[in-house]
Amino acid sequence: MTIRYPNGNQFHEQPASSNLHNDSIDFSNRGMTLEDEINKSNQYYLREGIAVVHKKPTPIQIVSVDYPKRSAARIKEAYFRRASTTDYNGVYRGKYIDFDAKETKNKTSFPLKNFHKHQVEHMRQCLEQQGICFAIIKFISDQSVYVLKATDLIKYWDNQDKGGRKSIPRKVIEQDGFLIKYRINPLLPYLRAVDSIIE
Amino acid sequence: MTIRYPNGNQFHEQPASSNLHNDSIDFSNRGMTLEDEINKSNQYYLREGIAVVHKKPTPIQIVSVDYPKRSAARIKEAYFRRASTTDYNGVYRGKYIDFDAKETKNKTSFPLKNFHKHQVEHMRQCLEQQGICFAIIKFISDQSVYVLKATDLIKYWDNQDKGGRKSIPRKVIEQDGFLIKYRINPLLPYLRAVDSIIE
Repeated sequence: MTIRYPNGNQFHEQPASSNLHNDSIDFSNRGMTLEDEINKSNQYYLREGIAVVHKKPTPIQIVSVDYPKRSAARIKEAYFRRASTTDYNGVYRGKYIDFDAKETKNKTSFPLKNFHKHQVEHMRQCLEQQGICFAIIKFISDQSVYVLKATDLIKYWDNQDKGGRKSIPRKVIEQDGFLIKYRINPLLPYLRAVDSIIE
Repeated sequence: MTIRYPNGNQFHEQPASSNLHNDSIDFSNRGMTLEDEINKSNQYYLREGIAVVHKKPTPIQIVSVDYPKRSAARIKEAYFRRASTTDYNGVYRGKYIDFDAKETKNKTSFPLKNFHKHQVEHMRQCLEQQGICFAIIKFISDQSVYVLKATDLIKYWDNQDKGGRKSIPRKVIEQDGFLIKYRINPLLPYLRAVDSIIE
């Protein structure tokens, strides 16, 4: 069913741009982005009363808005802003959880440039408050997904400034991270890895 | 200093519309909205390493985007969406905290229509995961601010359907809530009330 705004514009559940960077179609998960997969898993966790985790909206800088009579306010000019936090947070087993999700086409390592400085700083701040922080990393080439603790990520991040490498070797992610195997429900059972981090 | 986007547009730190509903100017807090006051307090808590709490960005439905060469992507058409959660969440003393902030011009009660159903449902879901949930309520008439536990709010919310009143009497908020007195730093020390809720 096509849902329309009072002004006749069509309503899209997802931003028009959300699939732009999804070049490869994989039939096992129907060409979903990692974000779609996590959102779907979070919906399952919410429905089953297991955890409350939401993706934060994309931060937008609004410059100009039209307020037409009898129809929805229309944003005429706006720009994407850089987020000052990670994309996902919520509560699970009484704990604050906070993470970001990143895909890479790289096969042998995860480039640290996928993260912004302020995202890593945010994770550091949350860790200080005893939050559970991690990254969900997907290697697109073979569709493998890992949960990597923020402490492991930060170790490599900080080493960059000391002349260290600009990426995390996949071998390290395989050893220190948690492989998340696709299932039906939830699609990505990443909270199992969180259980291991909590314990 | 005026900061400009690569395309020459001026950068505004706050959405142009953020002060629209702030009719009354009070010199004690320089005409700030409750949102401004809470953001300022959160900045203090973050700087001092006390808590990490952020306001979520306003959810926007993007319909059309321009990608001009050599300048920032420009959103040409977008609409405001209804948020599916509360506006603020974060981590404090290892606990997940989650709240919404509402102002009322009413003097003797707080009208429940200030909350949307899905916000109350979200609080209920977070409470089930042992999150710390509450509302920050400001009576504009005399600039008094209270923290009210989500359980107290939900009690009145659910009673509406059983023929109960559509607002919470101010007397109840004064008795069961926590009065937050303005200070210099943080401007609104609402985490003191959270301490009481945790204990």
